[in-house]
Parts: sequence; structure tokens; C-alpha cells
Amino acid sequence: MAKTLSDAERAELADTLPDWALVEGRDAIRRVFKFADFSAAFGFMTRVALIAEKANHHPDWSNSYDTVTVELTSHDVGGLSSRDIRLAKAIDALR
Amino acid sequence: MAKTLSDAERAELADTLPDWALVEGRDAIRRVFKFADFSAAFGFMTRVALIAEKANHHPDWSNSYDTVTVELTSHDVGGLSSRDIRLAKAIDALR
Repeated sequence: MAKTLSDAERAELADTLPDWALVEGRDAIRRVFKFADFSAAFGFMTRVALIAEKANHHPDWSNSYDTVTVELTSHDVGGLSSRDIRLAKAIDALR
Repeated sequence: MAKTLSDAERAELADTLPDWALVEGRDAIRRVFKFADFSAAFGFMTRVALIAEKANHHPDWSNSYDTVTVELTSHDVGGLSSRDIRLAKAIDALR
């Protein structure tokens, strides 16, 4: 059963996911990605969508032209879980 | 040259785009779309992306699992233009 991250796991986040930041007012992490244009941004989103669907774990995300903002949290446990860390690492590997 | 909508054009919005609402604090329109699941939601986003890229007019949008929120405005003219109306109608035609 998934559970939220322990304090020790949270303390490691800055090292394991240096490009992600904690979201204020929400137990989630966020990373903003910039691209050359919309085509590149949406191409990236499509790759993330395939990863997310395969993992059955989906981002809360937004896009405006060349910018994609990804927020990860585990709605079913009400906060960050190991699934968010795994998905963040898989997304980072696309860049 | 594109320009923002006239008052007369704005008055028509409720009739021409009944499923879209004006966004508070921003000269933009918004519609929230609900789907069966992430796959259906992202499939819709992909169709919108193709339309947007072809029109060279792109949405500000977000997605969380089965929900897609689309906001349209014309950044270059600082508000709603006829391009937003055309794009909104094209998106409505997908549903």
C-alpha cells in the first residue's frame, strides 16, 4: 500500500530531484520545463503522457506555448509518495 | 491586424459560445472538459494541439487526470480576439 514520504525521504529530495521544488500549500513537487516552441512542448507532454499512463500515475500539469509546468502528488494518499519520485525521475530522463 | 473584440462581439459570446465563460481578472474565455479517464482527456488534448498548431494560435490549458481546462486569449493583442472565437468553435466541434 502506498503511503506518503517519510521525513528522511523528504530530506533526500533536494539531492535526488534537484530540479523539482516543493509546492507551497500543497504536498506536491513542481518543475517548469521550457522548450523552443509549442510543438516541442507538446511533444514532451506526449512522452510524459505515455509514461504516466503506463505507470497509472498522472501529473497535474499546465501548458502555455513553450512552457510546461508539471506538479506531482498522489491524490489517493493525500500527498507525496514514492510513485511521485519515480515519475519525476522518469520525466527528468526525457530531458 | 488582429484586435480585441468589440463590445458588440462580446455581447454575442453567450450565444455563439454558450459553454465558455469569461475568466475573472483576465480578458480570456474558459471551458472545462470532462472525460472518462486520462487516456480520453489526453487524446482530446492531442486533437486540440494539432488544431492550435495549424492555426498558430495556442491555448493556455491544464489537465488533471480526466479533466482539461482550456483558456483562450490573444497574448499579442492583450485580450480576446476573433482568433480565440475561431479556436473555441473548432475545439467545441471535437466534442
